[in-house]
Amino acid sequence: MLYLIGLGLAYPSDITVRGLQKVQQSKKVYLEHYTSILMNASLEELCEFYGKEEVILADREMVEGGCEEMIEASLTEDVSFLVVGDVFGATTHTDLILRCKQRNVPFEVIHNASVMNAAGACGLQLYNFGQTISMVFFTDSWKPDSWYDKIMENRKIGLHTLVLLDIKVKEQSIENMARGRLIYEPPRYMSIQQCCEQLLEIEDIRGEKAYTKDTPCVAISRLGSDKQAFKSGTIEQLASYDSGEPLHTLVILGRQTHDLELDYILEFADDRENLTEMLRKDQEYFKPLPWVPPTDDEMSD
Amino acid sequence: MLYLIGLGLAYPSDITVRGLQKVQQSKKVYLEHYTSILMNASLEELCEFYGKEEVILADREMVEGGCEEMIEASLTEDVSFLVVGDVFGATTHTDLILRCKQRNVPFEVIHNASVMNAAGACGLQLYNFGQTISMVFFTDSWKPDSWYDKIMENRKIGLHTLVLLDIKVKEQSIENMARGRLIYEPPRYMSIQQCCEQLLEIEDIRGEKAYTKDTPCVAISRLGSDKQAFKSGTIEQLASYDSGEPLHTLVILGRQTHDLELDYILEFADDRENLTEMLRKDQEYFKPLPWVPPTDDEMSD
Repeated sequence: MLYLIGLGLAYPSDITVRGLQKVQQSKKVYLEHYTSILMNASLEELCEFYGKEEVILADREMVEGGCEEMIEASLTEDVSFLVVGDVFGATTHTDLILRCKQRNVPFEVIHNASVMNAAGACGLQLYNFGQTISMVFFTDSWKPDSWYDKIMENRKIGLHTLVLLDIKVKEQSIENMARGRLIYEPPRYMSIQQCCEQLLEIEDIRGEKAYTKDTPCVAISRLGSDKQAFKSGTIEQLASYDSGEPLHTLVILGRQTHDLELDYILEFADDRENLTEMLRKDQEYFKPLPWVPPTDDEMSD
Repeated sequence: MLYLIGLGLAYPSDITVRGLQKVQQSKKVYLEHYTSILMNASLEELCEFYGKEEVILADREMVEGGCEEMIEASLTEDVSFLVVGDVFGATTHTDLILRCKQRNVPFEVIHNASVMNAAGACGLQLYNFGQTISMVFFTDSWKPDSWYDKIMENRKIGLHTLVLLDIKVKEQSIENMARGRLIYEPPRYMSIQQCCEQLLEIEDIRGEKAYTKDTPCVAISRLGSDKQAFKSGTIEQLASYDSGEPLHTLVILGRQTHDLELDYILEFADDRENLTEMLRKDQEYFKPLPWVPPTDDEMSD
């Protein structure tokens, strides 16, 4: 049996009781280790918490290569595959499950919190979120901006946009890759500041006003940990906000922001009046056209 | 201290280890008991699992009335407030947190899986979901349909729509309410069948083709439990699908359905060829207009 188990967000003890039982009865335990990190735990602490001698790190090569060894082992014994957040969160492991089905490997999913639902902790209603986007680290020559249209689509209909910030774990430099040297760069985690700078850079280029420097946002830092922090402000204000240690997530507000949501996020603002004003302006800009009665032609359709 | 603790979806053991520790150290334990149910557990089983003599049921009147007693108690002792799913899931308890802040009651949130992220288990990517809607039980004289426009907004930009199905716990009949009798109706949970019938009823009235009887959907039943089941089909097909015991959720597909998503949901279809054809038709209908080069005027802006 293969157990796919979400670990939640921060602490070793964020695993569910049922998840922990499955880990403890497993002969082998793998930890998916390239799309996120468990903030408040080292690998050693996880091993100790589970009472396991070894937790095998599954890097991108292993997971995208099909996890052959892991699937093979699951045919005859209990194996756990641990995923930070939920199994179907920011990174979905449906390909792994499809492979289990093809090979007749029994599997069970044990869910947990993901940033995609826990982000509701900032006070914005999950109901009012549109599609989620990912912001990757720009380089001098590579500034992908397909997310820009998605923000525009969300905001045209008044919805909030959850922005997941890039992390780079176990990446090689171009030079080391070219020379075939298995030397990895230190991990990098995008800050709120850099995310907002990249947002402004692309708005400068595209100029379609999907958002402006004055668009209200909420920065979510270290969600679910004891150092969790929220900061509300405009994109320009957050572009000079020191968000501290990772991980971070950003929400770009949509016009549908309800007064209850506003009350909540104003608690995290440095300048409440200014933010309220910016929100009202943004709501005005994205206000739908007034209702027009249908013509006789339309009514007779 | 007030601990707001998500219980996850089905089993008593779906609580996190950290959550369980907080429950056990709490003097009083409340369970929010009107927006969802823990599928695989009775109240007695929960008490036994927690090692508590009493878990107090918090009904709508208590929660919407401000939970004064609970907040008061939290000033001097540890209290747990349990919520099925996550604390910020389908029902957000931000009002309760605002009240804690006003009263200087320390609080801590312990997240868990919510239907809003665990729905990813059907194989559709959470990235591609638009705003979530709720489908309430229609009566002869009350058929609210504001969700219709939201489905249209989502589908115009190609996104999936998560439909949360109504549940009625501890509701009074109009007669009993009028007579002031505290007699409650047996709980009711909307089936996939009824949800799809109501969808078709409103499309018949509105006729704007936000969706049709042929629009592909995925029915999610008993998510996260040992009786979890998925069924893919058109709205018309699912309107005669016996979805069995509650709880249920429906996803209406959007044009952006990726081939990997399709592969996954076809596993749950009775007629794979028909569903693929209906999906292709739907994608064609909602296809964006072809790209047109900007005019000189637009470029000189």
